[in-house]
Amino acid sequence: MSEVRTKAALAGVAARQMATLSTEEKNTALLAMADALNAEAASLIEANREDLERGRANGTSESLLDRLMLDEARIASIADALRLVADLPDPTGKVLETIQRPNALRIEKVSVPLGVIGIVYEARPNVTVDAAALCLKTGNAVVLRGGSAALSTNKRIAEVLRATLAQTALPAEALQVIEDASRASVDEMLKLNGLLDVIIPRGGRSLIDNVVQNATVPVIETGAGVCHTYIDASADATMAEEIAINAKVQRPSVCNSMETLIVHEDFAKHGLRQLANRLLEQKVELRGDKQTLAIVPEAKLATEEDYGTEYNDYILNVKIVSELDEATAHIAQFGTKHSECIVTENDENAVRFLNEVDAAAVYHNASTRFTDGFEFGFGAEIGISTQKLHARGPMGLPALTSSKYRIYGNGQVRK
Amino acid sequence: MSEVRTKAALAGVAARQMATLSTEEKNTALLAMADALNAEAASLIEANREDLERGRANGTSESLLDRLMLDEARIASIADALRLVADLPDPTGKVLETIQRPNALRIEKVSVPLGVIGIVYEARPNVTVDAAALCLKTGNAVVLRGGSAALSTNKRIAEVLRATLAQTALPAEALQVIEDASRASVDEMLKLNGLLDVIIPRGGRSLIDNVVQNATVPVIETGAGVCHTYIDASADATMAEEIAINAKVQRPSVCNSMETLIVHEDFAKHGLRQLANRLLEQKVELRGDKQTLAIVPEAKLATEEDYGTEYNDYILNVKIVSELDEATAHIAQFGTKHSECIVTENDENAVRFLNEVDAAAVYHNASTRFTDGFEFGFGAEIGISTQKLHARGPMGLPALTSSKYRIYGNGQVRK
Repeated sequence: MSEVRTKAALAGVAARQMATLSTEEKNTALLAMADALNAEAASLIEANREDLERGRANGTSESLLDRLMLDEARIASIADALRLVADLPDPTGKVLETIQRPNALRIEKVSVPLGVIGIVYEARPNVTVDAAALCLKTGNAVVLRGGSAALSTNKRIAEVLRATLAQTALPAEALQVIEDASRASVDEMLKLNGLLDVIIPRGGRSLIDNVVQNATVPVIETGAGVCHTYIDASADATMAEEIAINAKVQRPSVCNSMETLIVHEDFAKHGLRQLANRLLEQKVELRGDKQTLAIVPEAKLATEEDYGTEYNDYILNVKIVSELDEATAHIAQFGTKHSECIVTENDENAVRFLNEVDAAAVYHNASTRFTDGFEFGFGAEIGISTQKLHARGPMGLPALTSSKYRIYGNGQVRK
Repeated sequence: MSEVRTKAALAGVAARQMATLSTEEKNTALLAMADALNAEAASLIEANREDLERGRANGTSESLLDRLMLDEARIASIADALRLVADLPDPTGKVLETIQRPNALRIEKVSVPLGVIGIVYEARPNVTVDAAALCLKTGNAVVLRGGSAALSTNKRIAEVLRATLAQTALPAEALQVIEDASRASVDEMLKLNGLLDVIIPRGGRSLIDNVVQNATVPVIETGAGVCHTYIDASADATMAEEIAINAKVQRPSVCNSMETLIVHEDFAKHGLRQLANRLLEQKVELRGDKQTLAIVPEAKLATEEDYGTEYNDYILNVKIVSELDEATAHIAQFGTKHSECIVTENDENAVRFLNEVDAAAVYHNASTRFTDGFEFGFGAEIGISTQKLHARGPMGLPALTSSKYRIYGNGQVRK
């Protein structure tokens, strides 16, 4: 049997045990894992050095090496994050609904772990710990397949955490790290129906697309965001500027940042020039339609392709519209149903935008940058779901649960 | 553009409008659809005759022809079912959660339609109407791809219903029927990411497997049930017999019927012979392990493959175990996580079984035949989900909804 299949099967057995553990047992294990990471910082850094050296030899970019790098401070912060997960409420074992039937059957819908969760991600050691913690906290077993560039680090993390689990009520087999660094191990995971209950990709567009296109196991899709901010005719000019600037430049590299600014023509006349100036000051490259270029000649002409692109960079499309419907139609055509904002003082337009725009998060007078599990108060984030099944938008711990029906009878049979 | 892509795109535009309609507008349309089916019974029966004649010419079996056949009574019953859907509560537009953040952002999680739902099913005209009604009731647009053997009937149903919708507040384009009867039209639907939000297969194993194996669009998997009834040592003998008989023979062809009876050896000694007699009287073929054969020599020896088979027929596997753990391990190995039952007077064992067995529905002292949306009181059933994402077990109308976050601010930006 392949490594992937063997480890998924072991995780499956462990999952049955995980589902019966108490919140306290799980939290005790999470705290022990955090302590072990602190205590083993030196050996983790040593293993990480191997990855870094191999990466440098292979010509890996400095920014990727930085994502991969572990030092005392980063390990301490990863361990602290683990302790915060222990502090969160356990979403499993909750009676979500009770149905009393006329035939005296009592039906309880109860939240339960998903089972075995596969995580496919890039060379980020913090994801190894974070994903493991979130899965174990919710009573799941987890099969982690991280980027090959972090393999030595991930192997050492797995050794440390599994040795720790073995001293707790949790089965060590609930945490599996795939060491086969070939593409084949990912391909195999994607087809492991019956052994994996769900796969969650965490990473860039090509990683997510590969999972979505090839998985037969159910997937929670996360990620892509072509987000818009629409400044309505009646918008408060100062507020609109602040929200647009924040959505674009506060952290352009993330999925909830703005890629296209849509401006009502009435606002454009008196407000776009100054907003464009501030964006240009922030080194944002502007690409606009012809009407935009008439007001902001520094902008390049935007193509259809531009309007569909997630830049994750200091580039912004601008489009001028003559009515709300034109804005929502543009969003329907080019958006990725992630986060969309209207800035307006017109409540009727706000209600229409919030109802008619189909996206995980729709904002009235606030930056799209808030689409985030921590900003929503969830205390954790598995990712931001851009699909509509199961979970949509920022996912906290409940996104890692399913439900089951417990039915209590006294001999009922169906007539 | 292909028929599938064109119709899915039209459904997508209609879905935006559907999402803004009131419950009353949707219900009015559903009632009008029911009236139209009654009024057009003659033309529906005429179209259905074409399918039946083609089917007979092709040598279709009588049981399949019966599933396909429409007459006045069946059309009346389909129309009545539509009226019942109109009567159900609308699960969309509900505020599911409100979060008030320290920065004064107010976040509302609201239930919304999924968008465009693809249904792939067999030659059953009642599914065409039923699936359309459930999708429209929940504010979705629907793309229906039924079995080619029912094509004339489905085309006529679509004409009648779309003409009716055109006279209501609902867009006719919200209901699409694919007329391309080739396998290629199904294959195309399965890959329509961005145009279809979800695909639900309704039908037999090979249809479902094809969808699960080939879809890149998210799927709600329904169907397969290898369900067990475990009779514990302390079971009430009469109750155990009644539940086992009911689970096997009340309707063997459906997914929630029992395929394997697991019996504790203490119960087997005094109770299995009589239970076997009653099953044999009902023409149930028994396949058992060696211990079973010692008590019931009429049984054939069961193979590993038998224990994993969903017979949907008058065939039953029997297995004798010496403890609860052996029963739950067998279920974990061979079950499909659908419906599982323990018959016992021992509450501790009942609690353990209900917690440890991983299935959509776990029963204490009641027949697995109750796993059904109507029996659960949902008033409708989309299907029985056997996956763990989004919905698990019998799915009522809420399974056809997603959620979105509406965020209300007054200029908040992220620090």
